[in-house]
Amino acid sequence: MIRCSIVGATGYTGIELARILLRHPRVRITHLTSRQEEPPELGKLLPELSKKSPLKIEKFDIRKVLEGSDVVFSCLPHTESAEFVLALASKNKIVIDLSADFRLKDPKLYKTWYGWKHPRQALLKSAAYGLPEIYREEIQGASLIANPGCYPTATILGLAPLLAEGLIETDSIAVDAKSGFSGAGKKLKAELLTGEVNENFKAYKINQHQHMPEIQMVLSDVAKAKIQFAFVPHLLPLERGILATIYARKKAGVKAKKIRAAFLAAYEKEPFVRVRKEGDFPSLHAVQNTNFCDIGVWAEDKNSRVVVVSAIDNLVKGASGQAVQNMNIRLGFPEQAGFERLE
Amino acid sequence: MIRCSIVGATGYTGIELARILLRHPRVRITHLTSRQEEPPELGKLLPELSKKSPLKIEKFDIRKVLEGSDVVFSCLPHTESAEFVLALASKNKIVIDLSADFRLKDPKLYKTWYGWKHPRQALLKSAAYGLPEIYREEIQGASLIANPGCYPTATILGLAPLLAEGLIETDSIAVDAKSGFSGAGKKLKAELLTGEVNENFKAYKINQHQHMPEIQMVLSDVAKAKIQFAFVPHLLPLERGILATIYARKKAGVKAKKIRAAFLAAYEKEPFVRVRKEGDFPSLHAVQNTNFCDIGVWAEDKNSRVVVVSAIDNLVKGASGQAVQNMNIRLGFPEQAGFERLE
Amino acid sequence: MIRCSIVGATGYTGIELARILLRHPRVRITHLTSRQEEPPELGKLLPELSKKSPLKIEKFDIRKVLEGSDVVFSCLPHTESAEFVLALASKNKIVIDLSADFRLKDPKLYKTWYGWKHPRQALLKSAAYGLPEIYREEIQGASLIANPGCYPTATILGLAPLLAEGLIETDSIAVDAKSGFSGAGKKLKAELLTGEVNENFKAYKINQHQHMPEIQMVLSDVAKAKIQFAFVPHLLPLERGILATIYARKKAGVKAKKIRAAFLAAYEKEPFVRVRKEGDFPSLHAVQNTNFCDIGVWAEDKNSRVVVVSAIDNLVKGASGQAVQNMNIRLGFPEQAGFERLE
Amino acid sequence: MIRCSIVGATGYTGIELARILLRHPRVRITHLTSRQEEPPELGKLLPELSKKSPLKIEKFDIRKVLEGSDVVFSCLPHTESAEFVLALASKNKIVIDLSADFRLKDPKLYKTWYGWKHPRQALLKSAAYGLPEIYREEIQGASLIANPGCYPTATILGLAPLLAEGLIETDSIAVDAKSGFSGAGKKLKAELLTGEVNENFKAYKINQHQHMPEIQMVLSDVAKAKIQFAFVPHLLPLERGILATIYARKKAGVKAKKIRAAFLAAYEKEPFVRVRKEGDFPSLHAVQNTNFCDIGVWAEDKNSRVVVVSAIDNLVKGASGQAVQNMNIRLGFPEQAGFERLE
Repeated sequence: MIRCSIVGATGYTGIELARILLRHPRVRITHLTSRQEEPPELGKLLPELSKKSPLKIEKFDIRKVLEGSDVVFSCLPHTESAEFVLALASKNKIVIDLSADFRLKDPKLYKTWYGWKHPRQALLKSAAYGLPEIYREEIQGASLIANPGCYPTATILGLAPLLAEGLIETDSIAVDAKSGFSGAGKKLKAELLTGEVNENFKAYKINQHQHMPEIQMVLSDVAKAKIQFAFVPHLLPLERGILATIYARKKAGVKAKKIRAAFLAAYEKEPFVRVRKEGDFPSLHAVQNTNFCDIGVWAEDKNSRVVVVSAIDNLVKGASGQAVQNMNIRLGFPEQAGFERLE
Repeated sequence: MIRCSIVGATGYTGIELARILLRHPRVRITHLTSRQEEPPELGKLLPELSKKSPLKIEKFDIRKVLEGSDVVFSCLPHTESAEFVLALASKNKIVIDLSADFRLKDPKLYKTWYGWKHPRQALLKSAAYGLPEIYREEIQGASLIANPGCYPTATILGLAPLLAEGLIETDSIAVDAKSGFSGAGKKLKAELLTGEVNENFKAYKINQHQHMPEIQMVLSDVAKAKIQFAFVPHLLPLERGILATIYARKKAGVKAKKIRAAFLAAYEKEPFVRVRKEGDFPSLHAVQNTNFCDIGVWAEDKNSRVVVVSAIDNLVKGASGQAVQNMNIRLGFPEQAGFERLE
Repeated sequence: MIRCSIVGATGYTGIELARILLRHPRVRITHLTSRQEEPPELGKLLPELSKKSPLKIEKFDIRKVLEGSDVVFSCLPHTESAEFVLALASKNKIVIDLSADFRLKDPKLYKTWYGWKHPRQALLKSAAYGLPEIYREEIQGASLIANPGCYPTATILGLAPLLAEGLIETDSIAVDAKSGFSGAGKKLKAELLTGEVNENFKAYKINQHQHMPEIQMVLSDVAKAKIQFAFVPHLLPLERGILATIYARKKAGVKAKKIRAAFLAAYEKEPFVRVRKEGDFPSLHAVQNTNFCDIGVWAEDKNSRVVVVSAIDNLVKGASGQAVQNMNIRLGFPEQAGFERLE
Repeated sequence: MIRCSIVGATGYTGIELARILLRHPRVRITHLTSRQEEPPELGKLLPELSKKSPLKIEKFDIRKVLEGSDVVFSCLPHTESAEFVLALASKNKIVIDLSADFRLKDPKLYKTWYGWKHPRQALLKSAAYGLPEIYREEIQGASLIANPGCYPTATILGLAPLLAEGLIETDSIAVDAKSGFSGAGKKLKAELLTGEVNENFKAYKINQHQHMPEIQMVLSDVAKAKIQFAFVPHLLPLERGILATIYARKKAGVKAKKIRAAFLAAYEKEPFVRVRKEGDFPSLHAVQNTNFCDIGVWAEDKNSRVVVVSAIDNLVKGASGQAVQNMNIRLGFPEQAGFERLE
């Protein structure tokens, strides 16, 4: 059994990760840690925990984590995660970082988008960007896997086949993304009070969301050209899920059939991407509590527009589920291990 | 006191209309009718109704409605509303139709989008399209006012200043619209069960919504050019409100300042359109239960994109409130009568 | 026109009060105050505010409030409200206090339930408990009206006729009350985060809620006997409304008919209490955004139990609406002024 | 591997059962059937289904079900389930019926509460009532297990220790139960439209719910005395969970300590009942998507009342989870198999 630890285990992604790992047949959880002086009861955060489970949240102790783990997941917030990952470097552990701290290859982008000087630029290069559908090979050999953001996962999977095949005008993309409130974490902020969220809906950080450079980096890599796009995230009055509605213009002469074919070919063998039948589009119910990205594609020969609807659970395929998928790839396990029954 | 009747009073728009008219200082409601054999109790639908109110929902009787009304509002469904309006023609009443039946000037569009042959094309010409911010003059003189759809109201108000001033590329528009479930009415449909809507979100009728020709008709009129656009409506798990996020590209050389100025100039004197300060964007809470359309504008000199966020309450500015605003204009009342205190 | 001010105007009850007073035909609002250094924009809190309204939230200045008001509403929190009310004493204003600070006649109860020594016990005696259905006469002559709590309003109205007529065993009462989250105010507390409230439901302060002594005081006064009861409040994942389900045992020999008759007689002439027909029980939709208390009564001759369902909007009949009703009574206005059309 | 089939697999309980069985290490699903002419796609109902899963919903064929199953779960509606179970009788299968059709021992109760003449009274006697915490022994030997209702599960577990130990007055019980809307199934009924449920709350079937005789039967059996109680169910605007707040009076002289001790002793060894610490009460979040019943107990020496808060997930411990727990007991599997990791 592979020994896994989760550092920063009390937030939404940490708990979701524990939930998935508890069902994983080939690993066991050794440490769940928190930096709070008095870590909360695990059962309060993970209600399905067995009455007799010995698992609990411990105060963070790096020595214990190192000794007791083969794989370490960092669910720490931005900057704290980088510090922790640096402390682990050269300790011969597989590290999967769910923060943004090792996603961007260009350190200058951290300055621009996060107002932060990256402390170890060499590690940025060696880290794999953990989106298996694009970078599976890099992930297989990486010691440090930078797990993608939730918006990037939904957005990139909805655009990659179009850009890889050169089917759309690269300056025509607009991404209208809507996320459940768990995407904003558990912080005590006025805008997350139920009186603000319930029966409400709004856009935020218009063309200014910190996930934009990450999306741009990968899309540009896929397209072999610099991609620009409009990106507007919105806050939905529900817990889980991201639905991104993506608008673009076909290149002249591109047929609708070719658009659909690109998606089908790209994702046919992917265990966690499902391309919907023509005329069928995913709702959030279709992906909540799963590691799937469901994609619906709208295109007509006589219309220059393409519309793609891409849906994920932000805490699963958009965070902790994808982290486990990455671990499975890295360790040579079946990619679905922990998500479905493998017999 | 002007005598008003509402035909088809038991649906969401009928009840919302009654709610507004009950507070209107210069009218009184004479008839609320339903075609159900046993009309429901009004108090069950309009909970704020006074214990002693004599108002009730009556079985529809055209003679009574004609005799007792100066203004007749039709909240009947598509096709039934047309029949009723035709029966009223030349009866010297002011008719405000909340259905789609007299909104489109080109009768062929009814064939294409509604699969319906329009029964009286002449009336299409004389009907005013009741969007006061664009057609106030026509409304002042009309006998028949076709009250706009909810999506068209939010979309057109968010685009008109840009198109009127020629500030954006006319083929670059994408409208991502999200509506509360009251927009779908009270029909007994599986997709409106709470188990389908709660904690869910989805796109529907992608580039196929029947409100598209209406939007296109008005935008083309405003732009003096044929406008095409992508339009994707979505269903929000909340009762009231439409938030449309609108994407376009500026024409070369257009400055951000000019974009904002166009909105400010267009709506400065409008009592029911509020342009937000730079960097401020409306949420649905900001417009629910009001007749306002709130608009936020995003533009930067160095970025070719424009993003407009336009928010309304679909039952008020998107339906019954706008109908009362139209009535006020037609009767020469202050436009805000019934919505705010006028002293 | 009577001049009204609201002190502590930015919370849920302050804003709801402004909403109602804006529609009231015989008053105008002169001051809305806040103790924040930079009071928020009124339009952000009260979205229906007219574009041109001169109303705004001012920093609190007692001199201005005194000079400009005939009626002062205090929406300040517990203890701060008492201080403010004491400062107003003998200034010849009508004061309506929405806090708990003058509701309890026995100062010792403040010690026990609020851990607070009441600063002016004499005023407790002269203050009227502002539940019109029970204390209308006292309210007519009072300078200081202590507006009841939300749970007490729903509970007392659901029990008073049974106790006044001696129809139930006085030691048999259990009150199971459920409130929307607006009852908890806008405080930045972890338990009010949307992640805690959404899709959740829980009991809290079992037999320990600070509204219990208030309920007991009034019920004992009505019953002319000391009343004890179980009281469990619960938090609903919705904004507005309290629904109290009340359980009791009939006294031996009491017929179901008599139970219903007691409610009908007690509330027949009350403008804001509606007793439902037999077999009909209120939902929260039936009372939200209204000043009504709707009551359904279950009793059968062959069953010893009585069940009463009592529903209100906690912000209207449970707070600000009742405050306006009290003002109307005090000033000799029609009791419904501000709530419904009076012609 | 034990072969399991689910008849009536498209409703909430059928799908939840499939979800749990898919994770169960010692069984596999052989048939999922529906009586619809064109059974829906399984993936639409069970979104986590693997892309390559061969599982699908088949049209019901009793022969196939019989041949391919060791255990048959009936999720058919009332009366149809009885017919199906009768058809299985003496076929040597283990049958677990999630309907109400074999829960009541006294056939007359079916007449009174369901208006239905039970077709095979002998089977009522031999069926085990599948509440493991009370009837584990009967379940171990039964061919037909009548899986309890959701309200009965929450209510009985919250009262049994008090009645078994004779700690409360048996005529003093009131049960105030609140359920998420999934308890009402997926029927196309006006009262389940999102416009009726969203932001609403109401009581229904006051003292008339068909689960009452089932509760009474078991409580009377536990207490060795006829138990009567008030029972009011309510509909919550959320998907999953039942929270029952239970009121009773202690017998004279009973200490609070004894009350708590009764719960601790009764459930100490139960894998799926968790008694909360003093002063701690469950919310629905604490039990959703788990097979736990969480119980909080309020008692004080100086107060004659006892309040018990009992919470379950209506689809898991209140239906399909309990059905799997019953199967585990019947087959001699560890009782937690399928719910938690057993190593």
